[in-house]
Amino acid sequence: MRNIDENNITQAVLDRMSACSNPRLKEVLGSLVRHLHDFAREVKLTEAEWMAGIEFLTATGHMCDDKRQEFILLSDTLGLSMLTVAMNNAKPEGVTESTVFGPFHVAGAPHVAQGADISAGATGEPLFVTARVTAPDGKPVVGADVDVWQADEDGLYDVQRPNLEHHQARAVLRTDAEGYLRFRTVLPVAYPVPTDGPVGKMLVATGRHPWRPAHIHFMVVATGFERLITHVFRDGDPYMDSDVVFGVRSSLIGQFDQHPAGTAPDGSAMGVPFHTLAFDFVLQPV
Amino acid sequence: MRNIDENNITQAVLDRMSACSNPRLKEVLGSLVRHLHDFAREVKLTEAEWMAGIEFLTATGHMCDDKRQEFILLSDTLGLSMLTVAMNNAKPEGVTESTVFGPFHVAGAPHVAQGADISAGATGEPLFVTARVTAPDGKPVVGADVDVWQADEDGLYDVQRPNLEHHQARAVLRTDAEGYLRFRTVLPVAYPVPTDGPVGKMLVATGRHPWRPAHIHFMVVATGFERLITHVFRDGDPYMDSDVVFGVRSSLIGQFDQHPAGTAPDGSAMGVPFHTLAFDFVLQPV
Repeated sequence: MRNIDENNITQAVLDRMSACSNPRLKEVLGSLVRHLHDFAREVKLTEAEWMAGIEFLTATGHMCDDKRQEFILLSDTLGLSMLTVAMNNAKPEGVTESTVFGPFHVAGAPHVAQGADISAGATGEPLFVTARVTAPDGKPVVGADVDVWQADEDGLYDVQRPNLEHHQARAVLRTDAEGYLRFRTVLPVAYPVPTDGPVGKMLVATGRHPWRPAHIHFMVVATGFERLITHVFRDGDPYMDSDVVFGVRSSLIGQFDQHPAGTAPDGSAMGVPFHTLAFDFVLQPV
Repeated sequence: MRNIDENNITQAVLDRMSACSNPRLKEVLGSLVRHLHDFAREVKLTEAEWMAGIEFLTATGHMCDDKRQEFILLSDTLGLSMLTVAMNNAKPEGVTESTVFGPFHVAGAPHVAQGADISAGATGEPLFVTARVTAPDGKPVVGADVDVWQADEDGLYDVQRPNLEHHQARAVLRTDAEGYLRFRTVLPVAYPVPTDGPVGKMLVATGRHPWRPAHIHFMVVATGFERLITHVFRDGDPYMDSDVVFGVRSSLIGQFDQHPAGTAPDGSAMGVPFHTLAFDFVLQPV
């Protein structure tokens, strides 16, 4: 086909994929092409804007490495991540809701024992977490692997500290015979998503703030249940209604109680005030 | 806003950009978000597909460097480039049409004199090009800077040869007092776009061939005229109707005439057969 113009090009591209042997790929990529072309036609994209888009995507790719995922951050801040999570994780009443995965998960975090202090040097006010993992009928889920990761009091994840050579505030724990999970960490605080890359420029250019309300990430994997990827948000956070990645669910807001110096839940003597969080995760059977 | 679902998230993202002070950016990004979300809802994008998309974009970014632009190649092969070019370059009858820029242009190619051999070691059958640059009224455009770039007989651009330290089949020439441009190069051949990256995987997965019909790239810049980015395609190419980047215009097909060994247009004695191309570029006044 020659002399393709802006109106017949979409069908020309779809026709070119007619030999695609994977019907789902054909459907997804075909839809993507239609919507991408519709977008360009709708705004009458200029060549300079097209080049700015190419440069933005290239810079986004160059910002990605084994510790930074700028494309996930882009997806998060444009609402695509939460849209995808919401569409694929409709849960029955009573089952814990999902939220965004985020760009800071790291595979291979250290497995630690019940009661461990996972902060591993991360700074912040002490926090003792007691979580329970159950089935919808309340029965404990024993031996679930629970990935936990969060930012420190500076609002930074370990992977955002270039000279840090060990994991901080990041671990994998296994639920005990009653489905419990107990660990010490630091109090999460609200933090801005990284603004030193293309996504930060996009947020500034569109008049958006980069903040996320304080939260701890959890990923729960247990045989016989759907994998749960979620957060527990810290009640009272000022950014609860304007999370830059649109991830807040009311059901995921936990009570982080403050306590004066004294005896901690693990029996240790605390010379400084500390916090406690109790939260239950209810998994959906497969 | 909390508890955002897949239906109200689009408006939530658009609302978040309400403070954007650049109305065009707001329009373009708002439209992009609407179409991106519509795409995800239409195909009910799964989380695994979302992650495959993130990984595809990341790999595409990682393939980009100062000699390779995989995002332009992606845009080209999905028809977005030609759509954008067509929308922005409607030309009056008689003015030379535009086509895609492609991923292989390099800024700072060597300026060479009229009559130069720009192949600079690139292999291929000899080709002598005579081109003229004029205004729509036929008057010569004097002193236009013309960027020329093309692949060699192996179908490779100089930047695709990792150990090559100088430019080959790539130069900038200036039109003479009659608007003429004369140079020697090699005969372009059909070639596959690079298939060793994510775009190549996409083409294979969708049952598409990666070929472009033989062509020479030209970019013509002259005071008082719109910049022209175009190709001259070699007549008779078997891929003329299935160019992988949808770039062929009938008006851009040139006659590449073959001649037996003898005297070349520049007066030199050729011991092997050679080709000639004559082509006129007509620029649009600004």
